[in-house]
Amino acid sequence: MPVNQNMPFPASPADAHAGDVLLADVTRGGRVESRHYGAAAVVDAMGRTVFAAGDVATAIFPRSTVKALQALPLLTEGAAERFALPDTALALACASHQGEPEHVAVATDMLARAGYDDGALECGVHWPLDSVAARALAAGGLPARALHNCCSGKHAGFVCLSCAGGHDPAGYVGAEHPVMQSVSRVLAAVTGIAHTRENQGTDGCAIPTWAVPLDSLALAFARFATGQGLGEARAAAAARLRAAIAANPFMIAGTGQFDTRVMEALAPRVLTKMGAEGVMVVALPAQGLGIAVKCRDGGVRAAEAAAAALIARFGKEDSPVLRHYMRRTLFNWNGQPVGELRASSDLAGGCLPESSS
Amino acid sequence: MPVNQNMPFPASPADAHAGDVLLADVTRGGRVESRHYGAAAVVDAMGRTVFAAGDVATAIFPRSTVKALQALPLLTEGAAERFALPDTALALACASHQGEPEHVAVATDMLARAGYDDGALECGVHWPLDSVAARALAAGGLPARALHNCCSGKHAGFVCLSCAGGHDPAGYVGAEHPVMQSVSRVLAAVTGIAHTRENQGTDGCAIPTWAVPLDSLALAFARFATGQGLGEARAAAAARLRAAIAANPFMIAGTGQFDTRVMEALAPRVLTKMGAEGVMVVALPAQGLGIAVKCRDGGVRAAEAAAAALIARFGKEDSPVLRHYMRRTLFNWNGQPVGELRASSDLAGGCLPESSS
Repeated sequence: MPVNQNMPFPASPADAHAGDVLLADVTRGGRVESRHYGAAAVVDAMGRTVFAAGDVATAIFPRSTVKALQALPLLTEGAAERFALPDTALALACASHQGEPEHVAVATDMLARAGYDDGALECGVHWPLDSVAARALAAGGLPARALHNCCSGKHAGFVCLSCAGGHDPAGYVGAEHPVMQSVSRVLAAVTGIAHTRENQGTDGCAIPTWAVPLDSLALAFARFATGQGLGEARAAAAARLRAAIAANPFMIAGTGQFDTRVMEALAPRVLTKMGAEGVMVVALPAQGLGIAVKCRDGGVRAAEAAAAALIARFGKEDSPVLRHYMRRTLFNWNGQPVGELRASSDLAGGCLPESSS
Repeated sequence: MPVNQNMPFPASPADAHAGDVLLADVTRGGRVESRHYGAAAVVDAMGRTVFAAGDVATAIFPRSTVKALQALPLLTEGAAERFALPDTALALACASHQGEPEHVAVATDMLARAGYDDGALECGVHWPLDSVAARALAAGGLPARALHNCCSGKHAGFVCLSCAGGHDPAGYVGAEHPVMQSVSRVLAAVTGIAHTRENQGTDGCAIPTWAVPLDSLALAFARFATGQGLGEARAAAAARLRAAIAANPFMIAGTGQFDTRVMEALAPRVLTKMGAEGVMVVALPAQGLGIAVKCRDGGVRAAEAAAAALIARFGKEDSPVLRHYMRRTLFNWNGQPVGELRASSDLAGGCLPESSS
C-alpha cells in the first residue's frame, strides 16, 4: 500500500535521548513484540566511569532508588540510636515495600518508638501493592491506610528523624522542614549535584526530588557501597544501612520483588534498589562500583533485566535469580510459554543465559 | 567525570525501529521524566495511507485490538441468531473487560445460551483487572474464575460459535479447531495478511495470534468502520458489531478504561480498542478511516495518548475525554500535581490542549 513520507524523527528534546541503547526486549512466537531503550552507567567511588551506554549525562529523577541515601541522617543525626531502631526498621526506611503485614508491623513500631501513629504519615494512602495483601485486607473488612503506602517506612523514618532533632514532624514533607533540609544536604553531597529550582520535582510520596545525571547517581552508590568520599560519619552510617538491608531483603520490597529476590540470593555482595519510572541502582561493595540504569520509557521490567545483566557482568556474579531476570520465559494465563523477556546481550557482555522460568 | 565512549547503538534488529517517533512523554517538575516511542498509521478503506509515523511496515502482534474482527463469525456463521445473543453479549465478545460483575453476568449468560458454563472456557483464570472488583470478590470469600479473565466474553463467543457450527467446543483455542480456523480466515481476509508459521504467536488467552504490519491493521479497521472490502455478509456483521459496541461501551472494557470513557462520549462516531503491549486501534466510520498505534515499549499510557491525539485530528473531534488523554496532569498519593502525561504535539497536528485533570 502507498505510504506517504514518514514524520521526521521528533526534534530536540526527544533527540536528547536518540543515543539511548537497547536495554531489553520482549518476544512472542520468536518475534520481537516490544523493545525498551535507555541508559546505564557503572562508576567507581573516584568517579571513574567503568561503563556507560546511552545518555548518562541528562539529569533524571532517581525516584525511590535514593531511599538508602535519604536514610543516612537517621544514623548521622542520632535518631536510630535515640529510638533504638532495629535493623528491620532501618531496612524498611530504605524500602519501597508491597504493603504486606510484616512491612506494616515494622512501620507501626517505628512510629510508636517516636511516640506517634500513622496519623503522622504524610505519604498518602493507597492499597497494598501486593495484590494478595490487598485482597486479604479487603477480605478482613479493613481499609487501606498510609501504613500500606510503599513509602511508609521511609516516612516513619522521617518522623523519627524529626523527633530526634526536637522538631514537630508536622509538615516534614515540605522542602523547608528541617528533615527535608537534612535529606537534601545528604543527597546533594553524595551525588555531587547541587539542588536548585531547576532540577527539583515532587515525588510520588509528596517529598521533593532532584534530577541528577545517571552517572552521578551511579557514583553516589559507589560511594554508598564503599564509604569512600562520604566522610567518616556518613561512611559508618552507610555501612550500618548496607548491613541492615542485606540482613532484611524482604523489608526492602516484598514477595516476588526484584530487590528482595536478588538480595536474598546475593546480599551483602550485591545491594539493589528499584525506583519508579524504570530507574534501578546497584551497589557492589567488593568491586567498589555503583550502577545506575534508566529505562527511558519508565519500564520496570527492562530496568530489572538490564540491572541483572550488569550485576552478572561487573559484579562477576552467576546465580539463578540473575539468569531469571536476564532472560526468562513468559507464560500466558494457561501456563503456556508464549515468549521471552531478554536483557540486551550488549549489556550482558555479548552473551545471554538459556531462558529460564 | 570522565566517560568512556558510549556503547554503539545496537545493530539490527533494534535498528529496525530506529525510525520510530515520539508518541508521548511524561514530565515531573517541568522536566521530561520518561518518553515513549512507536508508530502510528491512519489508512482509508481503499488502503490509502493518510498518515504514517514511525515504522508502520514491520509486523506487530495486534493482540486484543482485533477482537471485533474475531467476533465477525458470530454473525456470519449464525451463532448470534441461533442463541439470540443480545447486543451486550456481542459487545462483550469484542471486549477486554475488567472482570466487573456486569461483565461476568453477561459472559455467564452467553455460555448458558449455548448450554455450557465457565467450565468450557479455555482462557485461563485470573483475578479481575479492576482492583475494586478484585477486592470485592475477596471480601465475599469468592475465588477468581475464568469468567473474570479479561477475554472471557470473547471465549464465551467462541463456545457459542462452536456449538452453532455443531462442533464440540473442547479444544476451541487450538489452531486446528473449526472455531480458530474461522477466526484465522476472517483475520487474514480483513487485514490482507496471510497467516503462516513465520508470523504466528500465542496470545495471552491461549489462542493463536498473527503479526501484521501496522498499516494493514489500520486498513482492517477502515474496512470494519465502513464495510468496504469486506463482502456483504461481513459488512453486515461489522455494522451490527459497531452498533452493539457503541451501545455498550462499558461492556468493551469497564470502569475508568480508555475504550469505555472515549466511546461513552464519542460512539458511534468513534470506536476504539486497546490491546496488550501498547497497541490501539480506532475506527472512524464517518471519515472512513482506520487508525492503528503501536507503542514500541508496550506502554499503554502512550498508546492511549497517541490514539486520542489522532482521533481529535483525523476524526475532527473535540471533547473533554480526548483532551484528558492527550494531555493530563499527574497527581501523587496526596493529590498534589507532580507532572503531566502528554501526547506528542506532532501527532496532534502541532498543538496540544491545556492540561486537564
